[in-house]
Amino acid sequence: MKSRVNLAPMLEPRSVAIIGASTHPEKVGNVILQNFINEGYTGKLYPINLNADQVLGIKAYKSVRDVDDEVDLAVIAIPAEEVPEALEECGKAKVKTAIVVSGGFAETGLVDLQEKITKIAVKYKIAMVGPNCLGVINTKSKVNTMFLPSNKLSKQHEGNVSFVSQSGAVGSTILDVIAGEGFGLAKFISYGNAAYVDEVDILEYLMNDDDTKVIVLYLEGIKRGKEFVELARKITKIKPVVVLKAGRTSAGVAAAHSHTAALAGDYAVYEAIFKQFGFTIAKDLNDLLYYAKIFDSEVRPKGNRVGVITNGGGAGVITADEIASSKYLKMGAYTDSTKKTLRKIMPPLVNIANPLDLAGDADEKRYGSALDLVAADKNIDMIVVIILYQTPGADPEVTAEVVNKKTTLPKPLLVISLGTDYTLKQAKELESKGVPVYDSPIAAIDSLEALFEYSEYKKSES
Amino acid sequence: MKSRVNLAPMLEPRSVAIIGASTHPEKVGNVILQNFINEGYTGKLYPINLNADQVLGIKAYKSVRDVDDEVDLAVIAIPAEEVPEALEECGKAKVKTAIVVSGGFAETGLVDLQEKITKIAVKYKIAMVGPNCLGVINTKSKVNTMFLPSNKLSKQHEGNVSFVSQSGAVGSTILDVIAGEGFGLAKFISYGNAAYVDEVDILEYLMNDDDTKVIVLYLEGIKRGKEFVELARKITKIKPVVVLKAGRTSAGVAAAHSHTAALAGDYAVYEAIFKQFGFTIAKDLNDLLYYAKIFDSEVRPKGNRVGVITNGGGAGVITADEIASSKYLKMGAYTDSTKKTLRKIMPPLVNIANPLDLAGDADEKRYGSALDLVAADKNIDMIVVIILYQTPGADPEVTAEVVNKKTTLPKPLLVISLGTDYTLKQAKELESKGVPVYDSPIAAIDSLEALFEYSEYKKSES
Repeated sequence: MKSRVNLAPMLEPRSVAIIGASTHPEKVGNVILQNFINEGYTGKLYPINLNADQVLGIKAYKSVRDVDDEVDLAVIAIPAEEVPEALEECGKAKVKTAIVVSGGFAETGLVDLQEKITKIAVKYKIAMVGPNCLGVINTKSKVNTMFLPSNKLSKQHEGNVSFVSQSGAVGSTILDVIAGEGFGLAKFISYGNAAYVDEVDILEYLMNDDDTKVIVLYLEGIKRGKEFVELARKITKIKPVVVLKAGRTSAGVAAAHSHTAALAGDYAVYEAIFKQFGFTIAKDLNDLLYYAKIFDSEVRPKGNRVGVITNGGGAGVITADEIASSKYLKMGAYTDSTKKTLRKIMPPLVNIANPLDLAGDADEKRYGSALDLVAADKNIDMIVVIILYQTPGADPEVTAEVVNKKTTLPKPLLVISLGTDYTLKQAKELESKGVPVYDSPIAAIDSLEALFEYSEYKKSES
Repeated sequence: MKSRVNLAPMLEPRSVAIIGASTHPEKVGNVILQNFINEGYTGKLYPINLNADQVLGIKAYKSVRDVDDEVDLAVIAIPAEEVPEALEECGKAKVKTAIVVSGGFAETGLVDLQEKITKIAVKYKIAMVGPNCLGVINTKSKVNTMFLPSNKLSKQHEGNVSFVSQSGAVGSTILDVIAGEGFGLAKFISYGNAAYVDEVDILEYLMNDDDTKVIVLYLEGIKRGKEFVELARKITKIKPVVVLKAGRTSAGVAAAHSHTAALAGDYAVYEAIFKQFGFTIAKDLNDLLYYAKIFDSEVRPKGNRVGVITNGGGAGVITADEIASSKYLKMGAYTDSTKKTLRKIMPPLVNIANPLDLAGDADEKRYGSALDLVAADKNIDMIVVIILYQTPGADPEVTAEVVNKKTTLPKPLLVISLGTDYTLKQAKELESKGVPVYDSPIAAIDSLEALFEYSEYKKSES
């Protein structure tokens, strides 16, 4: 399958023209230019403005055709009715890619206007994203076309997870949540009305993008079903894809149609495709984060047997319940040798079992030796560490010890921890060192199961 | 059914003896006495200490029998082997209730020692909670027997939700999480090994407690099944009970047994009882909070038809999916009159439908008039307001407007909002004003469904 479009010049542009780069700080075009400057983008910037000689201290041009340079990306932020002409100019100037952030096309009934710009993009072979979208972020190349109030959206750090969203609001919300997570963002693409570039083009680009290790996808409809299936078959052999497909019910389908005019279609069909090709299916917005976190952090498990280490018996019981009632996971049984050594080194009040309840006074030494033994046990494939920081023993030394053990562990490990201030500080520390933390046993075990399922899928396909 | 024990003197004591009130600040007895002082407890305090004349500036006694006053509550924090004698003294001094926080009884195999203290409690009619427990909190009477590091556990404010936990670690963890929630705590009871006072006694007390509007319960086993069923029949007619019963699977049952020696029994039996008597069943720790929040805040719904107002189309679609795939809820259809008025006052880009997508630039006026109309619609019984604060329009004025409308609303209303810093600040403001906020559509709709189910149960039983 040859790519229809080349998105590389959009995500890694050497030069960007901002059409509608206003001198008024409240205008979208001004905010976008300001973003490029603030982010520390090091390529060339060409503000396009009919009335100003410069914008934010940068020389401005009346038309993109006046720019005496190859333009890799044009960001178009002008009223909808002026977009066709601007895009024609881009075509004549041989601009490679364009993002039309402007709204006021098919989503407000102006289908003809949208068709008009699509034809121009096709005619001049401009890889056009949008209209009616937030555009893109590349944390590495410092491209950022967001025009949202920066105080409302925390800043993501550079990482390996790329996120694709049809919906702008879902996109910005999840971007904000990602900023608070331990994992980092590689690329974000909000593609709005998908008049030309669509989910298939974007997924194909991310499939081949070395900086993207995990793809997270929010979808309402799919435009090119055949091509999507063809791509789906290939993409999950290379990297995991977590997908939330909204419109599972007739009420949801109706809502989706009224939202993006998307034909949400029969969810059962999508679900069958996702399952067949090893996609990880999310049902809720938070699932996107939960699953992204484990895929980003984890080595792949060799089997389905989980060992649970805890400092709170009750949380251990709930976690054991979740594992036992999951589809594929089960509680592992330690080897006799592990049991014997545990019995020898653990205080008498610690019952040698799985979950291994280290008790409320468990400190870093008890956690450390338990982790060593469970990690070395050949009957255990994945490790869940529960740390209730409200207990007397759990403290920053326990955090450091778990981070320390995790570094060289050949098995997946996650932490379950619930609480407010003290706990959240420890959880942040764990996550910043690459240990995924969950505030709910169900979310944790669901995520571990997703990791296991994907690993099994890859094994079966390789 | 006449109560076996009277727990009122324990939760609202006029006088408290602390047996083992050490002068050493790291000792449990010292921490507990310090707690009573710090909390501003206004009743009489009697430290019991063999070797000191005073502890923390308060006159100390060698034995509780030396106290020339009626003692409502004795908190016993001494080594296990010394507890029988101390309890005998309590009996002779006609102490009404006792909390044995000390561990080292049945949970470590010393079943005989536990039986011994139980016999003493029964003989002297002392309502004894424990051993091996955290004891109680009453936010109103300022009783607080927690002996956990105060920097690890945030402080709950006074409110209407009471929380009962067999497990100490689960108890302290959920207490910490409650501290970060908008709703407040009435009473907390951690009852440990339940040598005498058990879940039935505690639930009966809370059933009749006017300060308790919602009961949240974490259970591993139930000791007196017949009495539990008898109580279950009555309690939910009076107030909602949210229950998390750990040990749903054989792996969980085994873990529970190794944890509290509880005979977790067949979950299907418990589940049937809970369902028959209108308990709200939680499956995860966070569910306890989600459900408590909606029960604490809400007027009861008249029907199952939900109206969704949003500023993000995608989140509206996911929420509609959840409602449509729930057991009892459905998306409501506005009356023609509502539709007509909405069409008149909403900008053209707002599609008049349910979910009502107000678009990313929706401000407090648009939210306000949408809320007025949907709230007045006779086809809508419950309202979900989605506020994605990452959008340009949503800000503190929207927060204030939703709080304002909620104040007089005769229908349940909750907010769904996801995000980090900016969003969390707004969510906190909403919750502090009595508007429950959820960070996940699934959790929100599950909670609304729990509210509806309980309301229907109460209707059918009244």
